[in-house]
Amino acid sequence: MYCVMMITFLSGGTGTPKLIRGARRLMNDAEIAVVVNTAEDMWFGGGHLSPDIDTILYLFAGLLDTSRWWGIEGDTFATHEFLRRIGEDEFIAVGDRDRAVLLARAAMLSRGRTLTEATHALCRSLGVDARVLPMCDTGVTTMIRSGTTCMHFQEYWVRHRGSVPIDAVIRECAAAPVATGEVIRAIGESDAVVVGPSNPVTSISPILECEGIREALSDRFVVAVSPFIGDAPVSGPAAALMAAWNRPSTARGTYDLYRDFTDVFVQDIRDGDPIPGAVQLDTLMTDEEKSIGLAEAILAVVEEHR
Amino acid sequence: MYCVMMITFLSGGTGTPKLIRGARRLMNDAEIAVVVNTAEDMWFGGGHLSPDIDTILYLFAGLLDTSRWWGIEGDTFATHEFLRRIGEDEFIAVGDRDRAVLLARAAMLSRGRTLTEATHALCRSLGVDARVLPMCDTGVTTMIRSGTTCMHFQEYWVRHRGSVPIDAVIRECAAAPVATGEVIRAIGESDAVVVGPSNPVTSISPILECEGIREALSDRFVVAVSPFIGDAPVSGPAAALMAAWNRPSTARGTYDLYRDFTDVFVQDIRDGDPIPGAVQLDTLMTDEEKSIGLAEAILAVVEEHR
Repeated sequence: MYCVMMITFLSGGTGTPKLIRGARRLMNDAEIAVVVNTAEDMWFGGGHLSPDIDTILYLFAGLLDTSRWWGIEGDTFATHEFLRRIGEDEFIAVGDRDRAVLLARAAMLSRGRTLTEATHALCRSLGVDARVLPMCDTGVTTMIRSGTTCMHFQEYWVRHRGSVPIDAVIRECAAAPVATGEVIRAIGESDAVVVGPSNPVTSISPILECEGIREALSDRFVVAVSPFIGDAPVSGPAAALMAAWNRPSTARGTYDLYRDFTDVFVQDIRDGDPIPGAVQLDTLMTDEEKSIGLAEAILAVVEEHR
Repeated sequence: MYCVMMITFLSGGTGTPKLIRGARRLMNDAEIAVVVNTAEDMWFGGGHLSPDIDTILYLFAGLLDTSRWWGIEGDTFATHEFLRRIGEDEFIAVGDRDRAVLLARAAMLSRGRTLTEATHALCRSLGVDARVLPMCDTGVTTMIRSGTTCMHFQEYWVRHRGSVPIDAVIRECAAAPVATGEVIRAIGESDAVVVGPSNPVTSISPILECEGIREALSDRFVVAVSPFIGDAPVSGPAAALMAAWNRPSTARGTYDLYRDFTDVFVQDIRDGDPIPGAVQLDTLMTDEEKSIGLAEAILAVVEEHR
């Protein structure tokens, strides 16, 4: 156990949760805060889908299906299957228990609670001690433009399985997103911030775009982890998204996005293009042991700095 | 099999479906139309709950849980139970498959389809040959006032189990309800209309209050069935509701509400207060055989008239 008071992670939906899975074997959950991307949220399945928040919630609650890295392990799909039977196209397979969380969140939002408050309530009811913090409390949506079609990121990634060309990545919002007070406070109270190995374009950048985040990060010790090994992402559509941003889908391309606030950059040991000053670690978290190993190495970097 | 071309039932949620269960053993489903009360509808559980329509749909689809006379037989409650676990008070236990129907209906209404169109689509996807017709396509809600509290009928009946005193029965609607063209056409094409043994105050009267219904009924041969035996309803809160209307909870009290359009009134054989001209039949449908028996007797009355 490290003598770390608090680490804040910036997280999307798969890579960073894998790292957090390792970190929580080395720290108490109460010492962890996670600032979560909400730009993939949507009203869906009768409720409010917040996919990255739910992956983090279920991880800490011990409910996460870690074969898919979303949804609840052992969940049933009775509603989803009956919807298909009666001809409704629910393009994301929402589990029955998972749907309860979407419905509960929708009910809280409809009663006027903020997403931060709703997430806090879900943390309490699911027995989560970590601070799980939506990046902001207003709507921001990542849209993908393919030709003349503009679609929600979930449509692009789940319905079309990332198979359509991306002409532009659009962030749609009614008002410029502002990081919540809880997010700024968590970062300010942390010994270090870890930008996890999530998709830079649709997971991490929406967080960085929230007003106040970059300033808060510049005051902290920040470790950022590349989600690429060579020119390929460990998982997900990050390569196509980086290409749409005219950036290489590499550690170097990622570093360029993060360098102004990053103290230590982590790239994979297999990476043939070492970035000067970067730490090379095994970032391929194929099981829990590998997650613990990477988390341990990152916490050692933080310890060294203190 | 009777040589009946078409019967239209006016229906609420339990008594009339029991009668229709019998009728459909004697007629083809395609010869049956059901005009259904929608004044107990509400947005609920992430979807649009239309309890009386769903009981009728599930009856014809062979899915109805006939121990409760609502919901789908053998349904699971994973979402409902998880909602309770995370502290959300879903006061009606919506089954997982049942919820799919609520969600599908909500999705269709949100896409701008009318309730009549959505119900027709559900009929097709569930393989229902009968015409299941919402009484109207605009919102009408039966509210119960108890003291200074005004609550949806479902809150009164399900959450409070009918245990609070009723000071007034209120029909809340943005616009005066108008019977749909489909309803008027079904009645016009029918050999007879059967007003089933449903609650006169909250099941049948909302239908009668729709503009055009009484005129349509006055041109038809109408058989109306009392839901009371003596001064007690066979099921449900009809007695308290009749009292709130200052009417006796008896066959006679019911007859007074229906007499201007009713050709033959049916009251129970056990009823000690026979109404002149009424036919006394066994209306206590404790099983399917009893339902068939009552339906057979009513169809005989219709046959006699033709």
